[in-house]
Amino acid sequence: MAIPHLHSLQPVRVSSPCRVSVSNQYHYGRSNFSRKSSSLVYASSTSNFDRDLHLQSKVETVLDSVKWDEKGLAVAIAQNVDTGAILMQGFANREAVATTVSSRKATFYSRSRSTLWTKGETSNNFINVQEIFLDCDRDSIIYLGKPDGPTCHTGSETCYYTPVLDLLEHRQDEEHKLALTTLYSLESTIAKRKEELEVPESGKPSWTRRLLSDEKLLCSKIREEADELCRTLEENEDRLRAASEMADVLYHGMALLARKGVKMEEVLEILRRRFSQSGIEEKRNRKSQT
Amino acid sequence: MAIPHLHSLQPVRVSSPCRVSVSNQYHYGRSNFSRKSSSLVYASSTSNFDRDLHLQSKVETVLDSVKWDEKGLAVAIAQNVDTGAILMQGFANREAVATTVSSRKATFYSRSRSTLWTKGETSNNFINVQEIFLDCDRDSIIYLGKPDGPTCHTGSETCYYTPVLDLLEHRQDEEHKLALTTLYSLESTIAKRKEELEVPESGKPSWTRRLLSDEKLLCSKIREEADELCRTLEENEDRLRAASEMADVLYHGMALLARKGVKMEEVLEILRRRFSQSGIEEKRNRKSQT
Repeated sequence: MAIPHLHSLQPVRVSSPCRVSVSNQYHYGRSNFSRKSSSLVYASSTSNFDRDLHLQSKVETVLDSVKWDEKGLAVAIAQNVDTGAILMQGFANREAVATTVSSRKATFYSRSRSTLWTKGETSNNFINVQEIFLDCDRDSIIYLGKPDGPTCHTGSETCYYTPVLDLLEHRQDEEHKLALTTLYSLESTIAKRKEELEVPESGKPSWTRRLLSDEKLLCSKIREEADELCRTLEENEDRLRAASEMADVLYHGMALLARKGVKMEEVLEILRRRFSQSGIEEKRNRKSQT
Repeated sequence: MAIPHLHSLQPVRVSSPCRVSVSNQYHYGRSNFSRKSSSLVYASSTSNFDRDLHLQSKVETVLDSVKWDEKGLAVAIAQNVDTGAILMQGFANREAVATTVSSRKATFYSRSRSTLWTKGETSNNFINVQEIFLDCDRDSIIYLGKPDGPTCHTGSETCYYTPVLDLLEHRQDEEHKLALTTLYSLESTIAKRKEELEVPESGKPSWTRRLLSDEKLLCSKIREEADELCRTLEENEDRLRAASEMADVLYHGMALLARKGVKMEEVLEILRRRFSQSGIEEKRNRKSQT
């Protein structure tokens, strides 16, 4: 059963005997949505009344299961669903999680301002939440989602760009280095080699630069590596050989993407849309488009 | 300049005038390393004395720059450097970060037990830290590293396996679902299709199952998609076409990996070792092996 989008629900006034006392401890929807008296029930229509109430009760049950700290907060981490980049970390209270469930926009509780805040409410760079995960202790939350733009207020893609070990090792040039995982670290290296092509005689010889400057070589390598990957299956080579050939396919493919100005994140977004595990999200998107 | 591995340093007794008062507020090395009096200075040899003291001072400077909360803690998130999976979240105090810097094993402060603890000290599933990132506010830390095994005490790869939105949508079969990003979600889908091959007539027709059961088809598709990817460059097709063809190459390549029993994480580990951005880590590994 697909659940209704809570953020599309309108407060409807219901009269007795349908009049139900609903906790106004938190609200569903936009953070500036006004809190009304308990005589207001959020329901898209009276025919959906039971379903909405049931859902609201389920949300409460999930929220009850979270181990909120003495201030009523839990750690909330926003992560890019396609790249895995940790975008930011904040804190969430019951209301923040309930709002995220209903609006599907990552919402936090600001400890300094003592208010809810939805990431993007001023910058428009919302984080569109696909799934929310609780950890085994139920005191830590992941908002797994797709950011509309840079998450950090500095304009950086993520808030994590200060590498401690690099700083300790005196690598001044790396003081602003995003916390990139392997695939994106490789992408960043390839992008640097591409930039170096603009500067004649820059640095040591580089295979990546050579590939990037020679279209024929690049394409022949991609075809060759794909063939070698296939042969690990056809000729029953060992599994490590297959891993190594796939690494070659990926690297050379990414060099081509760099030539075309395509980011791996775009490739992964295409895969996510095609192969959405549940199919539910796809249906939901189709519905919201119609 | 490569910094020395602090965890290999031995406490050496130095006499005046070299005798230097060193804070014993925190120690470098294993968490059960005994704290000695200030007459002990951690130095690998007197010839390295100045360098070690300089490094220690730099570590202090970095730790001073962290905005510790009123309990002296900051949020610390451990992330798999190859897959981007958020493995766990804990808290760190100065000593925990200093220990992580020196031991390169993700170390936290247990609020319940009021002690340092290094993830893996009982399970041996250490998280080998490659880099430590601070966020823009300097009150949140990422330990980016490679886990030796499952991180969660439940035996799960990560501590985040409770999907809230799925639970709300009554998808009971998904109650234990890891917080996987796109690439690993796709890998998981392909693995499920492979399992289904064991059960005749299972479910709806599936292209992935067909690929997995037909080696010839799979290999011809990989070669075909690689060729189409190359043609986006050779025939100057638009960038979105290149992204789409790369998605096809990735998906079909991953189907082959599933056939061979290879994980994408292994492929990315190979890429990381080959293309380590700095080269420093590689040098360090070479040194530690000799």
